[in-house]
Amino acid sequence: MTLRNLFGKRSSSAVARERLQLILAHERAENGRPDLVITLREEILEVIAKHVSVERDKVKITLDRGEGVSTLGVDIELPLSSAAKLAAEKEKKAA
Amino acid sequence: MTLRNLFGKRSSSAVARERLQLILAHERAENGRPDLVITLREEILEVIAKHVSVERDKVKITLDRGEGVSTLGVDIELPLSSAAKLAAEKEKKAA
Repeated sequence: MTLRNLFGKRSSSAVARERLQLILAHERAENGRPDLVITLREEILEVIAKHVSVERDKVKITLDRGEGVSTLGVDIELPLSSAAKLAAEKEKKAA
Repeated sequence: MTLRNLFGKRSSSAVARERLQLILAHERAENGRPDLVITLREEILEVIAKHVSVERDKVKITLDRGEGVSTLGVDIELPLSSAAKLAAEKEKKAA
């Protein structure tokens, strides 16, 4: 798997966006910890929120609890820093 | 992308294994935070270590810092819980 595929192709409109994506997957042995992913979810989200300001409606969370594998996906659209905003506006004007 | 592909196909030998995989990707806008992924790496690893005992030599970390996207991959093979060990041994004997 090419990790770059996580975000798909980068279009020019994507330049004005900043995103963070987390995929956490747990493959259990028989009788292994059933809900490790759920346990880790809140704490990892707390760590992220310490470093970036996250708007609740810009966060997509998916949780897939299969028989042997649990997978958590977190996709966060981050507010642009003012410097990035300026650059994006400049680019728009130039286009 | 099928998230289940993260671990590839589940072979019978995989039953005796327990793994945790984390992929963290950051797509930067121009002039966005350059090293958010690196900032988050240590803290997320600390969160994981609080919940599972992680052996240093069973952890694979990859960091790919592309021009617009930084990606962190962490692949942890977890020590089997005693219950899981028993089940794995039982399965071996039965095979």
